This record gives sequence, structure tokens and C-alpha cells, in this order.
Amino acid sequence: MSSARDAGVLTVSGERLLGDLRHLATIGGTAGGGVNRPAYGDEDLAAREVVSQWMRAAGLAVRVDTAGNTFGRLPSANDAPPIVIGSHTDSVPDGGRFDGALGTLAALEVARTVAQHGMTLHHPLEVVNFQNEEGGLIGSKAVAGQLSADDLALKAVSGFTIGEGIRRLGGEPDRLAAAVRAPGSIAAYVELHIEQGRVLERAGADIGVVEGIVGISYWEVTFDGIPAHAGTTPMADRHDALLAAARFVEAVNRTIVTLPGQHVGTVGRLTVFPGAPNVIPGRVTLTLELRDLDQQHIDALFAVVAREAERIAVDAGTTVALRPTTAVTPAPTDARVRGAIAFAACLHGLRSLDMPSGAGHDAQNMAAIAPSGMFFVPSVDGISHSPREFTSDADVVKGANILLGTVLRLDVTM
Amino acid sequence: MSSARDAGVLTVSGERLLGDLRHLATIGGTAGGGVNRPAYGDEDLAAREVVSQWMRAAGLAVRVDTAGNTFGRLPSANDAPPIVIGSHTDSVPDGGRFDGALGTLAALEVARTVAQHGMTLHHPLEVVNFQNEEGGLIGSKAVAGQLSADDLALKAVSGFTIGEGIRRLGGEPDRLAAAVRAPGSIAAYVELHIEQGRVLERAGADIGVVEGIVGISYWEVTFDGIPAHAGTTPMADRHDALLAAARFVEAVNRTIVTLPGQHVGTVGRLTVFPGAPNVIPGRVTLTLELRDLDQQHIDALFAVVAREAERIAVDAGTTVALRPTTAVTPAPTDARVRGAIAFAACLHGLRSLDMPSGAGHDAQNMAAIAPSGMFFVPSVDGISHSPREFTSDADVVKGANILLGTVLRLDVTM
Repeated sequence: MSSARDAGVLTVSGERLLGDLRHLATIGGTAGGGVNRPAYGDEDLAAREVVSQWMRAAGLAVRVDTAGNTFGRLPSANDAPPIVIGSHTDSVPDGGRFDGALGTLAALEVARTVAQHGMTLHHPLEVVNFQNEEGGLIGSKAVAGQLSADDLALKAVSGFTIGEGIRRLGGEPDRLAAAVRAPGSIAAYVELHIEQGRVLERAGADIGVVEGIVGISYWEVTFDGIPAHAGTTPMADRHDALLAAARFVEAVNRTIVTLPGQHVGTVGRLTVFPGAPNVIPGRVTLTLELRDLDQQHIDALFAVVAREAERIAVDAGTTVALRPTTAVTPAPTDARVRGAIAFAACLHGLRSLDMPSGAGHDAQNMAAIAPSGMFFVPSVDGISHSPREFTSDADVVKGANILLGTVLRLDVTM
Repeated sequence: MSSARDAGVLTVSGERLLGDLRHLATIGGTAGGGVNRPAYGDEDLAAREVVSQWMRAAGLAVRVDTAGNTFGRLPSANDAPPIVIGSHTDSVPDGGRFDGALGTLAALEVARTVAQHGMTLHHPLEVVNFQNEEGGLIGSKAVAGQLSADDLALKAVSGFTIGEGIRRLGGEPDRLAAAVRAPGSIAAYVELHIEQGRVLERAGADIGVVEGIVGISYWEVTFDGIPAHAGTTPMADRHDALLAAARFVEAVNRTIVTLPGQHVGTVGRLTVFPGAPNVIPGRVTLTLELRDLDQQHIDALFAVVAREAERIAVDAGTTVALRPTTAVTPAPTDARVRGAIAFAACLHGLRSLDMPSGAGHDAQNMAAIAPSGMFFVPSVDGISHSPREFTSDADVVKGANILLGTVLRLDVTM
């Protein structure tokens, strides 16, 4: 019998974890080596059931909350608030087998390792499998008390509404309040995830300690010109909405690249009206999104871009309107959790790098109610949401060991 | 009784012509003051029938050729090849009441004036109402021997195929060859049309003498980058197909505006893939069209644009492919016909301006088989293909008088 207090270099069973990952990838497995498990579909349900069985086999007490999230709990000797670790097992259509699955199964392996060694932690340890992460972080949103009754009517990719989906998972959509965890009721939340980018790979780092999950602000931008005959309208008489929009796309890129910071900015959708080869475009609508860890920085970037838009519109003889649509607030991670992750990495002799998470994760909802942290392992070529998504066995095992080390560290520091 | 030889200042009945225009606009008339007469639809047939009745009432011998075009012929004393004048009465969906109708009814009014005055011209005078101008100059294409059997299967806006449409008009799609007019068999072709641009309005000119109908070359341009996550892909790692395409749109405009000439260039359609706000565009397809009176000039412009495209693609980390699609050869008008139009304008004390036609017209097909010319009257604000298309009564009558003067002049010069 060893105790958590002196188990700094305790390690998980890499073989067992890799075996679990391989097995889970067969549920909804696709020909290309990926998985197709959109939330609430049969494959999603089957995968969740398998994970629940593994939790029970590891000695965890499994329950599904009213929002349909699965928690497997390893009790502690006393009544301290739990440390929660985990991720999700749903996927985008034709997605990869690491996104979410790695964090969920590594958390299970950590709990299994703790249980197997007969350790008694100060905090209960909960392994969570959030539902419908890919469709908008729905499960963790409910846990943070931010899922509204209106959201239940939204249709998920699988065709079920979120309300129907929660029922399929064994939840009770009419009693969402019962799934909410109060601020202070969770000691810490930690999530391991694949990077979905190339920052670690390029830097030659083993793990990325997430400084925060970036905020995202979206705008719908409309340039209005005058549609006209492409043959009979001399160049000087044109009010070409696409010319203005093209200059705007270039200006967004120039602004983003020129100004210092880790921010990114993207025009991902652009639609031309009427969109005929022989008609000068009269209207273009496009989306602008800006991401950064600091909302004030996003606002400052937008101010520059909006000024450019006005200048471009006047110049091209069009008008422009920039309408804010959705926005996600930046979610900084907790310094103590970041410290525990870095400590564990150090203990295993691994090189860590501080970095923002450009993608959304359940950790950002959990950050609203608990000290939260997150870390990445490299994904080859930064590919994700694709059957080509890949993380090496070595990195998978490194990630799980750091998660174990982080839990043990947090158990004594939080 | 006057003869054509000394009737230089003979004029049409403006009131009669304006009445005809008003009457025709009630057939397929729309609430906004426009007309909806897509080729081969019931309204198109009804309008053509009314024009045929008016031709007969004016003493013209009416026949429908095997391609479905209507000709009304005023015989001459001798066997000379005819002078052909006219245009079309079909419209785009929800189009204007002057495009085509003006040229057809002005031609009818010219023939009616000649007949009414008991003139005997040297050349027979034929008034033509071409079929399906808006769907690709189909009727005149047949007359020039360029309509193929394959074309007959193409579906027009009205839902009928061209073959079905020709039958509905009383033609014989199986005997298209009988509609072909041999080179040399027509003394001259003249068409009056609204400008569909603002050149005349801006210049304060009464008519535009068309130097030629521009050639149009089309390309389908594809930029291929790499689609990637808009949150996790740093700016430096991107291969953004939309950024490249935006720079291309700007480069096309810059090239066209900078290089000397009357050419125009347009990117009218642009499609982004996958087109999601949070995905860096992996592919953009767009259309490029260049128009000029001189094919070599179009080719030279394209060479510059293509070089820019290559440079932009390399710079943005994308590839680019420029694939030529359809092309229409420039159709210069005949100097003698242009001279006759300018002569008639001068006789009426009107100011004429030489200009290219940026839009396609039946005259460009007729130019392949006969000395052809064309002239424009102003259209307010350059609006066409719209219920807001408008030409003043005064300009309508001026146009018809110049057409009459042109015919009388050509009758002695050709």
C-alpha cells in the first residue's frame, strides 16, 4: 500500500489505456481510422455505455446527472469537494479517435491507477464524460448552470434535439437544475486534450499548459453596392460589393498579422449576391471572427478592423455594416491548477509550454464554477476533426501520467 | 407621294410608336411596371402574336422561319437583298419593357412609315422579331447557321427546351437549316436598342453608334489552400484560400483599371469552401470575365491577371488554376452601316457617340453573315433587366427616327 503523498512518480498502465483507446475507436469506427459518434446517436450511446462499464469495473460509483453527463466517483476518506477530471466521447461527423476520448479514458486510467494502488486521496476523484461537447459544450454548460430551456429545442447533428438527446442518455431535461454544480463545490477540474494545432510539434514540447481558452467574437459583415451589368458598366461607374469585401478580407489579415499578440482572425464564410458571372456583385455578406485570451484585446482589434472597413467602403462606393453576433468570453485557467500540471510535467522530466487554447473545451464552462486547468499533448500535423487525427502512443501515455501527477499534486495543494 | 430618295427628314409617328410600346408592355406586365416574358412562355407567344398582327396591319408579309423567328417583309420593286431591322420581344424574368421591345416596335414603325408614305425602296425591308434573345441569342444564332441540334435540348427559363419552344412558336426544329440566311443574302442588318449603361447619359449624347459588340472570355479560377481550425491555427501556419482569392479580386480590378482601354473585367461569382465561420477556407472558386472589342487585347489582359494570380498563390501558400470556359468572339460592326447611322443622326441634328456594346445582342450573330450595325438610345441610370428600366418618350422617338433615316440612307448606299 502506497499513499498519494509519496507517489510523485507513480505511473499509469500505458498498455491498458492504449487498449481502451483502441477498443473505443471501434464504436462508430470509420474506414479511414476515425470515428463517427455525433452526440445522442446510437454510436454515442454505445460508447458512453462502454466507458460506464469500465468505470464500474474500476470500482467507481457511476451516475448520470439530469443533464445526461456521466460521472464515475472514487470516494475519499473525508467530505472534501471532489477533483473532477475528464472530457467527452462524442465526435464530430467522421471525426478522429483522440479528440475527447483521450481525455476521458486517461481520466479513467488515472482513477483506476489510484484505486488499484489502494490509495486514499484527500479529495474524492470524479471522472466525467460530458455529453455533446462537439455540439456546443452542452453537458458542461448544464453543469455550470448555463443551459437554458430554450437550448433543449435545438437540433443536434444526429437529428435529435438536445432535450431528446438528454433523455436518450438517461437524463431528465425537465430537471436540469439538479445537474448544476455550485461554485466552490468542486476542488478543481482538469482536462487533458489533444492540441488540434501544431504549436507543440513546432516547439518540440511534450505538453502545452493552457493559459486560458480564448474568447471568440463573431460579426456578420455586409457590404452593399449596386448590382449592375458586367458588360455595360464602365469600371469607374461600379459599386462592386465584392471588390470592397476582397479589400476587407485582405485588411483583416494585414491587421491581425501586423499587430502584436497571439490573437487570430478569420473570414470563413463569404457569400456573393446575386453571384452570376456577368453581374457586378451588389451585396456580399461575410463572417468575421476574432479570438484572443483578452476580451479588451479583441475589442481593440475589432476597432481597427471596423475603421478599415469604413475606409474601404467609402473608397469602393459601397456601404458596410458590421453586426456582432455570438461571442464567447475568454476563460482564463487557474494558476494553481496550471502550477500542478507544470509540476507533474517537471516530475516526469517533460518539457511544457504555456499556450492559449484556440478551440473551445468543456474546461471553459467548468472555469466558471471551479479552479480549472487544461493541458494538451501534440497532435501530428495539427490535424483534428478528421480521421487523420493522430497522437503517438508515447504522447498518449505521457499525457495520462501528467494527469495522474496533476491529480496527486492538486490533492495536497487544493 | 414622296420617294425614299428625298425623304431625309421624314419622321415616324411618335405617338403611334409610344402607344404600341405601352400596349406591348401590358402583355406579361408586372406590378412594378416591367414585363415578364421569358422565351417560349405564354406571355412571349402572346406578345409575338400581337406584333405579327401589327405587321400584317402595316401591310407586311409575315412569315415564321423554321427557327421560330418572325419576319415581316415589305417588298421592293426589284430583286435586291433585303435590309433587315428589328430586335426581340422576349424578356428576362421580371425584366424591363424597353429591352428588345423598343428595337422591334421601332423597326415596325419604320416599315409602317415607309409603307404609309407609299415609298418604294430599292431593297425589300424586313422587320425581324428574333426569338429567345435573352436565353443566348438563339433566334439570330439559327439565322447565322450557328445553332446546333445539341442546343435544342437545352432548357430555357420558361421550362421548355429550345426545341419545344421553337415548335411552340410555329417553327420546325428538325429543319433548322431552312432558317439559315447565307452570307451576302442580306444587304444590311440594323438594330436599335437601349444602352443598358450610363455612358450616353454621362456624355449627354443622344445616341451611341456601336463600334462592335465586345468579345467575352470567361475563366473558372480555383484557389486551393488547406482548410484548418480557425482557433488553433496560428496566422503564420495558414494556407487561406479566401485570402488568396481576395487578393486576386483586388489584382483583377487594379489591372483592369490601370491598363489603358475600354475593357471591363468582373469577378461576379465567388464560392468559399467549406464556408463555415470557424474554418479557414480551404478552397475558393470564382469566375473571371474580361470583355473588349479586341480579342488580342483580352488575351493580353488575361496574361497579366494570370501572372498576378500565380504570384498571389505562391505568397499565400495556395495553388491556383485558371481554366477557360466559354468565350464569345468580338463582333465588329460594319463601317458603312455605322456611317449611315451617324449620317441619320446628323440629319436630325442629334449628337452621336461611338462606343462598344458591352452586352451581347442579336447584331453580333448577324454580323457574321451581313454588314451589320447597331445604335443605342440612353437608358436612365443605366438600369436594365429590371422593372425600373426606363427610356424617355423623346429618346424612343429619336431612336425610331434615326432608324428610319438609317434605312433610307442604306437603301441608297448598300
